[in-house]
Amino acid sequence: MTSNRYRKGKEILDKVNPEGIEKIKESLKDMAPDMERFIVEFPYGDIYSRPGLDLRTREIATVSALTALGNCAPQLRSHIHSALNAGCTRQEVVEVVLQMAVYAGFPAALNGMYAAKEVFKERDEKGLR
Amino acid sequence: MTSNRYRKGKEILDKVNPEGIEKIKESLKDMAPDMERFIVEFPYGDIYSRPGLDLRTREIATVSALTALGNCAPQLRSHIHSALNAGCTRQEVVEVVLQMAVYAGFPAALNGMYAAKEVFKERDEKGLR
Amino acid sequence: MTSNRYRKGKEILDKVNPEGIEKIKESLKDMAPDMERFIVEFPYGDIYSRPGLDLRTREIATVSALTALGNCAPQLRSHIHSALNAGCTRQEVVEVVLQMAVYAGFPAALNGMYAAKEVFKERDEKGLR
Amino acid sequence: MTSNRYRKGKEILDKVNPEGIEKIKESLKDMAPDMERFIVEFPYGDIYSRPGLDLRTREIATVSALTALGNCAPQLRSHIHSALNAGCTRQEVVEVVLQMAVYAGFPAALNGMYAAKEVFKERDEKGLR
Amino acid sequence: MTSNRYRKGKEILDKVNPEGIEKIKESLKDMAPDMERFIVEFPYGDIYSRPGLDLRTREIATVSALTALGNCAPQLRSHIHSALNAGCTRQEVVEVVLQMAVYAGFPAALNGMYAAKEVFKERDEKGLR
Amino acid sequence: MTSNRYRKGKEILDKVNPEGIEKIKESLKDMAPDMERFIVEFPYGDIYSRPGLDLRTREIATVSALTALGNCAPQLRSHIHSALNAGCTRQEVVEVVLQMAVYAGFPAALNGMYAAKEVFKERDEKGLR
Repeated sequence: MTSNRYRKGKEILDKVNPEGIEKIKESLKDMAPDMERFIVEFPYGDIYSRPGLDLRTREIATVSALTALGNCAPQLRSHIHSALNAGCTRQEVVEVVLQMAVYAGFPAALNGMYAAKEVFKERDEKGLR
Repeated sequence: MTSNRYRKGKEILDKVNPEGIEKIKESLKDMAPDMERFIVEFPYGDIYSRPGLDLRTREIATVSALTALGNCAPQLRSHIHSALNAGCTRQEVVEVVLQMAVYAGFPAALNGMYAAKEVFKERDEKGLR
Repeated sequence: MTSNRYRKGKEILDKVNPEGIEKIKESLKDMAPDMERFIVEFPYGDIYSRPGLDLRTREIATVSALTALGNCAPQLRSHIHSALNAGCTRQEVVEVVLQMAVYAGFPAALNGMYAAKEVFKERDEKGLR
Repeated sequence: MTSNRYRKGKEILDKVNPEGIEKIKESLKDMAPDMERFIVEFPYGDIYSRPGLDLRTREIATVSALTALGNCAPQLRSHIHSALNAGCTRQEVVEVVLQMAVYAGFPAALNGMYAAKEVFKERDEKGLR
Repeated sequence: MTSNRYRKGKEILDKVNPEGIEKIKESLKDMAPDMERFIVEFPYGDIYSRPGLDLRTREIATVSALTALGNCAPQLRSHIHSALNAGCTRQEVVEVVLQMAVYAGFPAALNGMYAAKEVFKERDEKGLR
Repeated sequence: MTSNRYRKGKEILDKVNPEGIEKIKESLKDMAPDMERFIVEFPYGDIYSRPGLDLRTREIATVSALTALGNCAPQLRSHIHSALNAGCTRQEVVEVVLQMAVYAGFPAALNGMYAAKEVFKERDEKGLR
């Protein structure tokens, strides 16, 4: 049975990062089958679906936080994809990551920049903007 | 002698948080007089003054990062003021802070919310929006 | 309308920390009324209510994490209360906090110990074990 | 000369993770020969050998902390092995890691889950439970 | 019975921060009497007493780390005292803290500067350099 | 046009790590061409060039911070090179990294040690001390 929260979350994920969540689902289906559901339901169904902040701004907030925290490179790359899919330009992503040098230091910002570089290259190969 | 970078940075700070930087200047003038200058010049003169991201979005990025890092309550409060002065609504600040529950956990988001509450109260008393 | 998830979460909170969640509700009712609901529903309704790990062990896991992260003293104190209410002894809390010296350093463990000391004193005054 | 603390620590490591400490010893013997000794003596000889908390609970506390800190994947994998060797079930490890989504965010919990997945696969190949 | 490690550690603490450790001992004597012993024995008896790095440099390393981590203000203040007692000048402490803006961001460096300011004031009152 | 700050910063980088900054420049020239300039100008031109702390001590402070933060392995390796180029001995680097076990925990110190090991090996191959 699919909850309403799951449906609302999936709708957003289908816009910004349909592949990312499928990989998580596939990867964890045997050992933690509920985790994919929780990710769709709480972050996306409960939070991202709220009014008061558009998707593009939400992804900018997330890219900022993950660059600053600096301990979750795969998720940062995934959210840089989401940010671009939600309408951010590449230059905006670069600006947000660069700004993190001020709040989390240059090493965190540099590693964020390398994450963005990988994402941009991957998207170039797929012809995505 | 005032550098061009200082002037550009001061111009932005005058818009978003003129009191904050004065407090830092006053507080550190004897022991680290250059620190206030560095803060005006690098974060504001070099980074916030760049084109490609408007001030409001820059402050949203900073509020996200400081809430997620969770170890700098005074600076978070200061940037919530800046975000509101740069045109964010209170509801947008609340949304950004709430979203951090997903990326840095509920305690970090709760402490961010308490920081926002203090700032809102202070602004109510001063008749600021 | 109260969701099933809320009811399940509230039931657990009533056992381990009924006052903590009331304070959060009261404190955030004007600015972020949904946050208390999210805390009851996701952490408690979805996670703590799962089979496979008893409440006492869940609270030990949380006290460990919050001591190690070291940036959320109020929530650490709250979960030390919860741990004791869930059946941990004071000595077990002390052991868990001390062990964090190994994984997050002595300062984090010391600050965890001071949090525990405050909680123990408060409970002595209330005649709680 | 082997200290009493070293002997007590080694005894515990022989139960939960004899290979891990051998790798550290071999790897650091030339550049920091004392480090292996310090690891056996302080974390294991002084802390894990204390009464008041059983080994299984100690490893749950450590897995919680390392998942939440999120910056030490090799040591997290090593302690997931230790937790299973100390009597935790795989499902208990999964529950502890999942719970960290609440306190350190979903990215930290996801990376903890991937660490657990690697460990489970390695143990499947060796016929370990 | 006092171990040799305790004696070696206490000797160093008597030079750099005799009051700090007495406060910890007094504060934790009832709930975690072994913690003070562990602090004297491992950090000071085992680590600070090693040849290869003088005390002054060790305290600079510690002030750097605690400023960068940013979640342990009381211990940072304590180690700024130790650094000055070990022969660092106030200006050296200021330089180290300022440099952390590069590696952990401006908020962490600012909070480190405020910690130094408090320590300097306290020492002025006591006539310490 | 090259600023005076850039020239001062480049002079220091030429002493401690000329290759590191060239790699960053090359890597980011298309997506964030200003970042290399900011790194030369602020950390090196503004901070490292200040009197009051010699280069060797500055690099010890940086190695301490990056080991403790534990989320930027490439930058830590780069600064271990810089520390050795600025006159630190290998043994001093090992001592600083080991000491971080006290302040950031054993996993952070272990990962710092592995970073140092890689750097030492690379330098052995190049005949560097």
